Amino acid sequence: MGGDRGAAVVVAACKRIAARYPRVKLILVGQQRALEPLVADAGEQLSVLHASEVVAMDESPADAVRRKKDSSMRVAINLVKSGDAAACVSSGNTGALMATAKFVLKTLPGIDRPAIMAELPSTQGRVYLLDVGANSRCDAQQLFQFAVVGSAVVANLQDIAAPRIGLLNIGSEAEKGNDVTREASALLTQSGLNYVGFVEGNDIARHAADVIVTDGFTGNVALKTMEGTASLIAGFLRQSFRHSFAATLQALIARPSLRRLQRQLDPRAYNGASFVGLNGIVVKSHGSADDVAFEHAIETALFEIQDNLPAQIHRWLKSEAA
Amino acid sequence: MGGDRGAAVVVAACKRIAARYPRVKLILVGQQRALEPLVADAGEQLSVLHASEVVAMDESPADAVRRKKDSSMRVAINLVKSGDAAACVSSGNTGALMATAKFVLKTLPGIDRPAIMAELPSTQGRVYLLDVGANSRCDAQQLFQFAVVGSAVVANLQDIAAPRIGLLNIGSEAEKGNDVTREASALLTQSGLNYVGFVEGNDIARHAADVIVTDGFTGNVALKTMEGTASLIAGFLRQSFRHSFAATLQALIARPSLRRLQRQLDPRAYNGASFVGLNGIVVKSHGSADDVAFEHAIETALFEIQDNLPAQIHRWLKSEAA
Repeated sequence: MGGDRGAAVVVAACKRIAARYPRVKLILVGQQRALEPLVADAGEQLSVLHASEVVAMDESPADAVRRKKDSSMRVAINLVKSGDAAACVSSGNTGALMATAKFVLKTLPGIDRPAIMAELPSTQGRVYLLDVGANSRCDAQQLFQFAVVGSAVVANLQDIAAPRIGLLNIGSEAEKGNDVTREASALLTQSGLNYVGFVEGNDIARHAADVIVTDGFTGNVALKTMEGTASLIAGFLRQSFRHSFAATLQALIARPSLRRLQRQLDPRAYNGASFVGLNGIVVKSHGSADDVAFEHAIETALFEIQDNLPAQIHRWLKSEAA
Repeated sequence: MGGDRGAAVVVAACKRIAARYPRVKLILVGQQRALEPLVADAGEQLSVLHASEVVAMDESPADAVRRKKDSSMRVAINLVKSGDAAACVSSGNTGALMATAKFVLKTLPGIDRPAIMAELPSTQGRVYLLDVGANSRCDAQQLFQFAVVGSAVVANLQDIAAPRIGLLNIGSEAEKGNDVTREASALLTQSGLNYVGFVEGNDIARHAADVIVTDGFTGNVALKTMEGTASLIAGFLRQSFRHSFAATLQALIARPSLRRLQRQLDPRAYNGASFVGLNGIVVKSHGSADDVAFEHAIETALFEIQDNLPAQIHRWLKSEAA
């Protein structure tokens, strides 16, 4: 029921997934009256489960957990808890989704707080950044836990034996940053992780590491700054090619190359932030996602289901603790 | 003597400034033997002042202040202190330059710590971000002081009566962020500044405010993430146009439009970060700056001299305190 574009986008994405993955079943949780007409022409793979309430986009996470016991996100996460669903995908209120997921599913043993992990473009494939907003302040131990969880997730998603872990900082020298980054760096150095040291903001897109760890405040700013910069440049590019009649002609001729660029930067191909560190799979889609973007978020969940990700992370945490 | 490309770049930039501003005198501070051959063909506007030491790019700021009393940056800043120079421009070690500037020049009354302010491209002209690295942790009072100083500087540089001030956060709602951002927001709301509230990472390039205030850790990550994203997209753009013979032809035809884009994004046109909140003008050029970029850094200093910026900020602080 969440997202800026309503349930139709979600249903359209589900239909595409159903066509591509014939064994996958999708349960649409929300207001029956709104959803049933949308799935009327869909086959057996799609079904509707009624939830009487909806968490508003500006509702406080605590209120959502305490008061909206029959909200679509609560019911969907309950399905994950009971084992009736293998994952939950939502484009609802991020804070409320995280608070509900944490309350219902709980964190994995050894993990204090779940984090939100974003997938980003880089010069060499995808790079993963966490936390991008769940925890606005983190201590060194939490950053370390994010690294452990991020490593396990990316090892599975990208099929890399030992993903390179970088810690986001404001310089690459050992004395740079603050007490928290220095202490987290010491913990990472002693761990069995493939820790490559401090990385800086410009190293994200350079793919200096496969997994980049930071607190939710810095990570959120970095993620949104990337989005903003990409939009700015796309705007400049459009302006450049509209500057004159000649430029418009040039744009027509250059169109195939420009389209290729557009595909490489298409934010829809990166939609779907994983909530990691929970006893269950929850993927958050961007509120403004269209059906193609939402489809990618569902696919992210499918990959995590295939790999049985929470169990893998759990095993990893146990072996690391031993 | 600093920077990755040596003194020749600095001298070339000085010659260009001298040609464009016949009343400006430029004192090159550093090793006489290295500098004199470079200025031999220059006119009276350029002179050399010998300094026997150089601060290394990896030297600790404290060591630079304590031990290198005849370093080029120390001697240059001493000239500002004594009034023999109106400003210092350097592409040396940022931390050492800031520590030396603070030690020699001191902060303005009412300002606890100086900040580094960067100039960035946006959809509507330039936007200013501070702090981008001098203070990796800040309390609410410091963020408030950055806003006061930033407002005064941008009012002068951009000739805006009351620059819009935004506080960088991870959401625009009042309850978002952490204690420091919420407390700083309360201080800004009560002030006489043109405070527009919280802004997010993607609002920097959207120019949601003229001055965007944050701590040096987040600001540095945002700045470098912007740089990294711009490089990534430039790389994708080059690849797109090299993908095939047809694409290469398209690039040739589209070249004027692509050049226009390149100019809009040219980091050299944004080079020169102001150290603000000091009793004197210090501008830091990027270490990798070429002569065009260094020329822009000198011009930034010239604008600040023309406006007598530290005195203006001082007046503003006094009137705000009254």
